[in-house]
Amino acid sequence: MKLTPHILALLLAWALPSLALAAPLPSWNSGVAKQAILNFVQKTTDPDSKDFIPLPERIAVFDNDGTLWPENPLPFQLAFTLDELHRRLPEEPSWKDDSAVQAALGGDLPALLADHYKGLFRIIELVGSGMTTEDFAARVRAWFSTARHPRFKRPYDQLAYQPMLEVLEFLRDNGFKTFIVSGGGADFLRIFTEKTYGIPPEQVVGSNTRAVFELKDSGPVLVKTMADLFIDDKSAKPVGIYQFIGRRPIVAFGNSDGDKQMLEYTTIANPHSSLGVIVHHTDAEREYAYDAKPKSTGQLVAALAEAADRGWIVVDMKKDWRRIFPE
Amino acid sequence: MKLTPHILALLLAWALPSLALAAPLPSWNSGVAKQAILNFVQKTTDPDSKDFIPLPERIAVFDNDGTLWPENPLPFQLAFTLDELHRRLPEEPSWKDDSAVQAALGGDLPALLADHYKGLFRIIELVGSGMTTEDFAARVRAWFSTARHPRFKRPYDQLAYQPMLEVLEFLRDNGFKTFIVSGGGADFLRIFTEKTYGIPPEQVVGSNTRAVFELKDSGPVLVKTMADLFIDDKSAKPVGIYQFIGRRPIVAFGNSDGDKQMLEYTTIANPHSSLGVIVHHTDAEREYAYDAKPKSTGQLVAALAEAADRGWIVVDMKKDWRRIFPE
Repeated sequence: MKLTPHILALLLAWALPSLALAAPLPSWNSGVAKQAILNFVQKTTDPDSKDFIPLPERIAVFDNDGTLWPENPLPFQLAFTLDELHRRLPEEPSWKDDSAVQAALGGDLPALLADHYKGLFRIIELVGSGMTTEDFAARVRAWFSTARHPRFKRPYDQLAYQPMLEVLEFLRDNGFKTFIVSGGGADFLRIFTEKTYGIPPEQVVGSNTRAVFELKDSGPVLVKTMADLFIDDKSAKPVGIYQFIGRRPIVAFGNSDGDKQMLEYTTIANPHSSLGVIVHHTDAEREYAYDAKPKSTGQLVAALAEAADRGWIVVDMKKDWRRIFPE
Repeated sequence: MKLTPHILALLLAWALPSLALAAPLPSWNSGVAKQAILNFVQKTTDPDSKDFIPLPERIAVFDNDGTLWPENPLPFQLAFTLDELHRRLPEEPSWKDDSAVQAALGGDLPALLADHYKGLFRIIELVGSGMTTEDFAARVRAWFSTARHPRFKRPYDQLAYQPMLEVLEFLRDNGFKTFIVSGGGADFLRIFTEKTYGIPPEQVVGSNTRAVFELKDSGPVLVKTMADLFIDDKSAKPVGIYQFIGRRPIVAFGNSDGDKQMLEYTTIANPHSSLGVIVHHTDAEREYAYDAKPKSTGQLVAALAEAADRGWIVVDMKKDWRRIFPE
């Protein structure tokens, strides 16, 4: 590498903000959770600490729905999927005969989620396969640019939790590589994670399927299918982490029983120091309050019961977070 | 980020070598191939160029066998697999009745590769599933520490092509993110790619299967299976790139018809400038010479025929490379 003016500018851009940066995690109130995060980063990045972790091993994984943004009144990808179903229905008259479509149009969420989400995946198949990956991406982008959350009246991608954005940035500033490990679809997630969370597509592990490659006259395309569907939830989260990342994380943030195995994989008998965190939804006024009986997804019972034994930090959104969303 | 002494040291470590660094690609002879690589990097990293590519989009993908290291007399993973078969045979007497094992022990490579590599994958199943991912990793590490290449008499992981190591480094020095996209097994590749190529596990896309998560008394493990086998070759390479990386590359290096679709996906109708390169094995004296009739894998006919039309650079190993292996 030559030290060109361009490289020098990059170096300066990297070094200068650090000089002016205020204390980390400003949207977190003082307390056990904030202190645990600060202490963990301090001890794992201090070369003189017995808990020091070399840079390449600093892998941090984050669930998305309920951990980085809300999952109510519906997971946002489900809102997109239902909106897409309505939008395309006039041009797809045969869809009306489908029982999953009928359940979706009738707002019958329990029917969609029954039998291991069979109806939901049928809807996802209808609106999320058979087109090219670029067409799908364009539809997701169009949705984000127009749809608004029914309660918070904002574009969905402006509802990331401010305190979690600060955690992501704080970890990255300290050499951690941040990954999404979500039950949501990777194709959907990758449209907004870079802009919203600073997490590039190649660091997004989500539910996924295999596309099909075709070389058309206009150029190469990948056509979305439902082949080899991988649902990146529960026991599959460590499987997805191994398959996509290939290293054991040392930091995991989740909010539901769907994250239990990811937290276990990260924190139990890990040769490195590790940090497991559960975001507990306790703030009905500013966001939502639920655990055993969630309004949509996000049931939190088993992981919460295990937290004390495992040393997982439980974040009390109401007490620990000074604010919920960005200004 | 605070500008701690540790961060300062990192900054200096990053900046200083660049001051002393000699001209890039020293093991490349002057010629069309070297010039094409230099020109491409120059124009895509110059902010004033119409071909400038923003940092996050600088994705470069590399085939492994025959592109970054040899694939003769056998692909190295196959050498490992056969050595493992022999090593474990005494403790697995039932294996002797397996027709694939018999073909392997008899050195009958055509039989192993027939019927879409059915025999080969049976052997891979025998020596590569049923154990934990950590056990498998330990076996691969043990093999690399003892096995020697029959012709070059070196540990296999010291046979990376020196000119390609320089390409990887040159691209990374210019803000490119380098990925392996190989038909080889991701589990096998990830053991050595970080040390040998400077490519971390999370930037390795290879053939893969799904493991199974188990929480044992001793801690969490992932048990290797053959479930959902994905063979990352030919048309599957763009599929794997989309699934794992989620962006279209702008640089692709390959050496065989197995890389044709990856080269097509990278270079045809890409909105960005792109670079496709084929490493042509023309040096029987220092390495091997083959294309239409390879000694093992690596047939190169269709991609070579397409190269001129597509503007792919064909590297003539004999003429273009000053040396083949590191000292």
